[in-house]
Amino acid sequence: MTRKKTGNNKYLKELNQKVLLDLVRIHGAVSKAELAEWTGLTPTAVGVISGSLLEMGYLHETGTGESKGGRRPVLLELRSESFYSIGVDIDVRTITAVLMDIKGSTVREELVEFPEGADFETAGGIIVDMVGQLTKQAAISPERLLGVGISIPGMVDSETRSVVLAPNLGWRDADLQTWLSRHFTVPVYVENEAMASAICENWIGSCQGINDFVCINIKSGIGAGIFTGGKLYRGAGGSAGEVGHIVVDENGPRCGCGNYGCLETMASTAYVVEKARKLVRQGIVSSLNTYEDTDKIGMEEIIREARKGDEASRGILNEAARYIGIAISNIVNTLNPSRIVIGREFVQYGDLVMEQVKNVVSGKALKAPASRVEILASDIGEKASMLGAAIIPLKVLFGR
Amino acid sequence: MTRKKTGNNKYLKELNQKVLLDLVRIHGAVSKAELAEWTGLTPTAVGVISGSLLEMGYLHETGTGESKGGRRPVLLELRSESFYSIGVDIDVRTITAVLMDIKGSTVREELVEFPEGADFETAGGIIVDMVGQLTKQAAISPERLLGVGISIPGMVDSETRSVVLAPNLGWRDADLQTWLSRHFTVPVYVENEAMASAICENWIGSCQGINDFVCINIKSGIGAGIFTGGKLYRGAGGSAGEVGHIVVDENGPRCGCGNYGCLETMASTAYVVEKARKLVRQGIVSSLNTYEDTDKIGMEEIIREARKGDEASRGILNEAARYIGIAISNIVNTLNPSRIVIGREFVQYGDLVMEQVKNVVSGKALKAPASRVEILASDIGEKASMLGAAIIPLKVLFGR
Repeated sequence: MTRKKTGNNKYLKELNQKVLLDLVRIHGAVSKAELAEWTGLTPTAVGVISGSLLEMGYLHETGTGESKGGRRPVLLELRSESFYSIGVDIDVRTITAVLMDIKGSTVREELVEFPEGADFETAGGIIVDMVGQLTKQAAISPERLLGVGISIPGMVDSETRSVVLAPNLGWRDADLQTWLSRHFTVPVYVENEAMASAICENWIGSCQGINDFVCINIKSGIGAGIFTGGKLYRGAGGSAGEVGHIVVDENGPRCGCGNYGCLETMASTAYVVEKARKLVRQGIVSSLNTYEDTDKIGMEEIIREARKGDEASRGILNEAARYIGIAISNIVNTLNPSRIVIGREFVQYGDLVMEQVKNVVSGKALKAPASRVEILASDIGEKASMLGAAIIPLKVLFGR
Repeated sequence: MTRKKTGNNKYLKELNQKVLLDLVRIHGAVSKAELAEWTGLTPTAVGVISGSLLEMGYLHETGTGESKGGRRPVLLELRSESFYSIGVDIDVRTITAVLMDIKGSTVREELVEFPEGADFETAGGIIVDMVGQLTKQAAISPERLLGVGISIPGMVDSETRSVVLAPNLGWRDADLQTWLSRHFTVPVYVENEAMASAICENWIGSCQGINDFVCINIKSGIGAGIFTGGKLYRGAGGSAGEVGHIVVDENGPRCGCGNYGCLETMASTAYVVEKARKLVRQGIVSSLNTYEDTDKIGMEEIIREARKGDEASRGILNEAARYIGIAISNIVNTLNPSRIVIGREFVQYGDLVMEQVKNVVSGKALKAPASRVEILASDIGEKASMLGAAIIPLKVLFGR
C-alpha cells in the first residue's frame, strides 16, 4: 500500500509558527501568555516558537503589557522594517510595481510604459529591472525580500501558474512564472488580476474579515475574484470568476467567447464607449455631440458629461449598470456572498449608477441572499491588483 | 484593547488529535512512525495523542506492519463498532433515517410516512422515535452515538441553523435544531438537502478527493451543494447554491421567486410533468395519449415512454436538459469546478439526456473551464441527502 500525503497533512510544526505569527499581525502587540491562551499550546511551546520568530527577525519585543498579577509581560510585535514584498501589475500599456512592508504598507511605487503587444519575455525583463530599482532605492538586501507577486489580465493555470490566455496582452501559454523564477532568488507568484484585487480587498481594503465575498473588476473586460470561507477560490483549473461570460441578454451581440449577450458585451467600458460613439454617429441628442472627433469619446468624456447631467450619457451608464445588476443577481443566488465590491474603472462612475445596480439586484435576486449582501464600489480602485500581488508573499508567510 | 479569538485560532491540541484520527481513517491502518513522519510531530507527541484516541475507543491496535529495520510496528485502525451516527431526510411525504458506523457504512435504515403539510414539531416527534428505534434495534448505547444530522428541503440559516424557509414543507422560521436538541443529549445538525447530498458525494460518492465540485439536485425543485477547496460552501447566510433561480430564459414563465424563466420553472420534474400533461391535453402525437387520466401522468410514465422511444416524451426531457446545460454553463464559468454531479430524481433519466446536457455545456461555457469539468449523474441518487446528513457528525469528529 502506498502512503500519500493528504490535503490536511501539513507539517503541524510549521503551521504552529504561522498561526502565532498571524495572531501577532492581527492583534498588533501580544504577550506570550495570550498566545498560549488563544492557541491551547503550552507556555513552553509558545516560548520555543516565538523565540525562533524573534531570532529570524520577524518579531521584536516592545514595551510591557498589563500585568495579570505577576510581573508585566513583554509584548511581541511585527518588525515593519524586517521583510518586504513586491507586487507588479501588468496592464495593456503600463507595468506598475509597489514595494510593500511586512505590515502591508506601501514603501514606494514605480510605473513603466509597456509597449502594446509586447511578449512576456519583454514584460519579464522590465519586471526584473523594476524589482532591482525598487530594492536598490529603498536599500533592501535580497534576503529581506519575501517574494514577488505578478498580476495578469488573463487566465492563470491553477497548477503550473502559467498564463493560459491573456487576450488583451495577446499572450497564450506564457510561462512568465518560470521565466522570472530563473531571474530571482525569491519566490514568484503569478496571479489573475481580479483574484489579486480580491486578495487586496481582503487584506487592506473593504473586505477585511469578510469570509464570503466577490470582487468584480470592470474595465475593457470583466472578471471576478471570489473568496469562500475566508480563502481565495481559484476553481479546478484556475479560471473561477469568469463572470464576464454570464449571459445577461440572449439577444445581445456576439461575444469573443462564441456566446451571445455575455455581461462583458453589455457592460464593459469598451462596450460603453462603443455604444456612446454609435449613438453620437446616429445623431442622438447629447452633449457628447460637442466632441468633434467621435473616436476621441472615451469613458472620461462619458462620465464627465453624465456628471454635468447629460441624459444620453447617464442612460448609457445606467443601461450597463442594469446588466451588471442582472449578473450580480445570479452571483448572489449562486454564492450568497455577504459583500460584493466592484473595482477598477467602475470606481470612476460607481456613484452615478450604484443605485441602479442595487435596485436590479433587490428586484431579481432571491430575498434571503439579497437582504444579506452589501454592494459597494472599491475604495482602492485601480491599484488593487498591484497591491494584491504584493500581498501574496505576505499571505504565504502568515499561512493565510 | 479587547482580545478576540480569530478564525484560524483553533485549539491546536484538538486540531492535532483530529488530524491524526483523519489520517488513520484515510489510510486504513497506520503505524505511529508514519503518523509522526506525515505530521512533523515528534514520536512522543504522536504517542500521547494516539494513546488518548485508543483510550477513548476510536482506535484499536491491529496486526503488525512492515518492519523498517527494527521490530515490526503495531498498526492503528478505526474501530468500526465504536461510534455511530444517524442521518435523517425529511421530504414532502416521507421521513427516512439511516444508522451509520464511524467508517461510513450503513448499519440499518428506516422509512416513515410523513403527513403532508405537518409542522416541524410533528417531524421532530417522528425523528425522536426513529432515532430511538434505530439505536434500540442495533443495541447502541446513547454515549456511542456521535450525533444526528437532518436534511431539509429548504434554506437553513448559516448561524442559527433554523429553517428559514422550506416551501414544499410549508415551514418558515422553523427551529427544528433547537427543538430536537432538547430531546437529544448528542449534537443535532440541520442541513440543506442539496448541501447534505454534496457532503455524501464527497465522503462516500463520486466526488471523493474532489475539492471543487457542485452537486445539483433535481426534483420538484432544483438546488445545489457547492464544495470549494475541499469544503462545503454555505455562503454568508446559508443559502449558497440556489441555482434553481439562475435565469435560463427571460421569456419563460413566472417563478415563485418573482423572476421569469428561472431554471426551476424550465427543468424541474414538476415542470416536466406539467408540460407533458399540457401537451397531451393539446392532442400531441405521443404514446402518453394512451393514459386515460392525464393527471396520472408523472415522471415515471414520461421516462417509461421515452425509453420505449416516444419522441414527444424524449423531447420534453431533452428540452429540460437543454436548460440544465445552460445553467451548468453559467456555473462552470463562475466556479470552474472539476466535477458536476446531478442527483435525486435526475438519476432515473440521466442516461437519456446526459449527452444533451454535455453538448450544451461544451457549446456555451468557456473552453478552458468546460474542458476541465466532468459532468455525471449521481451513483447514489435518492439516498444521498439522508446519507450526507449522517456523515455530518463524522465530519465533525474527523475535523473535516
